[in-house]
Amino acid sequence: MITIRDVAKQAGVSVATVSRVLNNASSSEKARLAVQSAVKKLGYSPNANAQALASQNTDTIGVVVTDVTDSFFAILVKAVDQVAAEYGKNILIGIGYHHIEKERNAIETLLRKRCSCLVVHSKALSDEELKNYLDQVPGMVIINRSIAGYEHRCVSLDNQRGTFLATETLIKLGHKKIGYIGSNHLINDEVERKQGYLTALSQYGLPIIDDASIQNSPDFEGGEAAMVDLLSYHSDLTAVVAYNDNMAAGALSVLHENNINVPRQFSVIGFDDMPIARHIVPKLTTIRYPIDLMANYAAKLALSLVNENVDTPIHTQFNPTVVRRFSTDICIK
Amino acid sequence: MITIRDVAKQAGVSVATVSRVLNNASSSEKARLAVQSAVKKLGYSPNANAQALASQNTDTIGVVVTDVTDSFFAILVKAVDQVAAEYGKNILIGIGYHHIEKERNAIETLLRKRCSCLVVHSKALSDEELKNYLDQVPGMVIINRSIAGYEHRCVSLDNQRGTFLATETLIKLGHKKIGYIGSNHLINDEVERKQGYLTALSQYGLPIIDDASIQNSPDFEGGEAAMVDLLSYHSDLTAVVAYNDNMAAGALSVLHENNINVPRQFSVIGFDDMPIARHIVPKLTTIRYPIDLMANYAAKLALSLVNENVDTPIHTQFNPTVVRRFSTDICIK
Repeated sequence: MITIRDVAKQAGVSVATVSRVLNNASSSEKARLAVQSAVKKLGYSPNANAQALASQNTDTIGVVVTDVTDSFFAILVKAVDQVAAEYGKNILIGIGYHHIEKERNAIETLLRKRCSCLVVHSKALSDEELKNYLDQVPGMVIINRSIAGYEHRCVSLDNQRGTFLATETLIKLGHKKIGYIGSNHLINDEVERKQGYLTALSQYGLPIIDDASIQNSPDFEGGEAAMVDLLSYHSDLTAVVAYNDNMAAGALSVLHENNINVPRQFSVIGFDDMPIARHIVPKLTTIRYPIDLMANYAAKLALSLVNENVDTPIHTQFNPTVVRRFSTDICIK
Repeated sequence: MITIRDVAKQAGVSVATVSRVLNNASSSEKARLAVQSAVKKLGYSPNANAQALASQNTDTIGVVVTDVTDSFFAILVKAVDQVAAEYGKNILIGIGYHHIEKERNAIETLLRKRCSCLVVHSKALSDEELKNYLDQVPGMVIINRSIAGYEHRCVSLDNQRGTFLATETLIKLGHKKIGYIGSNHLINDEVERKQGYLTALSQYGLPIIDDASIQNSPDFEGGEAAMVDLLSYHSDLTAVVAYNDNMAAGALSVLHENNINVPRQFSVIGFDDMPIARHIVPKLTTIRYPIDLMANYAAKLALSLVNENVDTPIHTQFNPTVVRRFSTDICIK
């Protein structure tokens, strides 16, 4: 994709200058001609951003999430809405479904609706494309992803540290044969969370067991299927680390159907600390992902970037923490 | 509140004529003067609607829901988003939290953002105020509520029939001492759902037991608290009907903690058929509320009202149905 930065490079001017020319703002005749020539040569098509930038307003915060029917994103949206209400503003929501065209369309629509503040959860778009948006939209903040060079506008959590803690919790309860139930979505979260599990095993000198890591859809049904697979491969596992709470709940359901008592015979630990973790029996031990606090921070940061009357929130490093409930216990094998 | 209908009555013209005058559309000089005089006399202040109507667009469907962190509303939003995608449109979301000012603000904001199609879930605003909006916004559809005279623009379900079916299901399994766990939100849904329970008891000649109907917040924690109250009052109930699945899940959790086996010793039936009904052990018998189908219908209806290229969907009466899972069984007492 040709970006505004390619145009700037070709024209020998800054990105800001290209932006000014494209928005018909004041610029030198020389710069204008150079930019127009570069646009023509590269076939660059300025997107909605340019028009949006020309007429920013800050009464509305745009939010892009993957799927509102997932509690994680619903909590994110609600937290941004609460910040908006606090500042007398409103929110608009775009839904991306982890799909490249839909994520792009969600961002473009919010820009066309003149949102100058955006909190964006994007997993399908490339770093390059997001950098291009970040360059053009000063009030855009990325959540649950870190982009090199733009860390100050990204709010993320150390996923690897989270599953490390989860696995370590099980190891300290005496578990030695621990499986992993992961996501089959091709996003970084899975890579990082699996790595945390492997790192903990390695650090505590436990072997990696063949076929003890199973990937499936990151929901209840995927957790059920993955747990069935794990039980089919192994009769001697005593615990699993799950990619998220929904998968852990699915695993619990299958263990129950197989008359395997949790936590007496088998321990399960989740990730995220969503409401379902408190609503199932036994209540789930899990890793808290403070998405409510992170979304609150992201929304305030986005507002502060475009409105000098909003203080920049104090930068916070968000950490995963263990929430001990009743799905984990000492290993009796 | 002075409404556009009061103005029409005072001016002796139709509501449509008032709307045309206020939007500077073509109208007779006589009508224009009559309307202007009536507006002045009554002190009518046209709200954002009028401005929005003057410059409608149909590329965005506005949705007002109570709280996206409740699965019911998340599923509603997703269904509208899918219709929007099908027609190459997008959605904007307002959140009302069952609060009169917030519901009004959500609707007004979407109108200011020039949404001419609206799917509105409102429980706090009066019939009168909603009628006023319906008169002014031709593309507005109400979901989960029926307003007299506007039935063709309302999409609702017979709540009373739903809890009647739930209670009848328990009665046919031999249960005679059946409790009810209801919502303490002052909305019609609770009145209707409790009435369905009472009607079924009456129709099958069962007595109404004192203190066997407990109200609490319509969520998991409210269901837990209500079940604790029921157990405190009664040692001989064998079943409960719950206002929704979250409350039913809370009840199941308390029964489990009290070593009361579901469904062997006690039956529980929910309402809505949300994902949690399938994600708890035992999986919950419940009443399906087809909010996905209803939201799909409502979105298409809203589009058809403002766009002659969209066919009016065939009017459908949506019905509650029993989904039998594993939280109900025959009464052994």
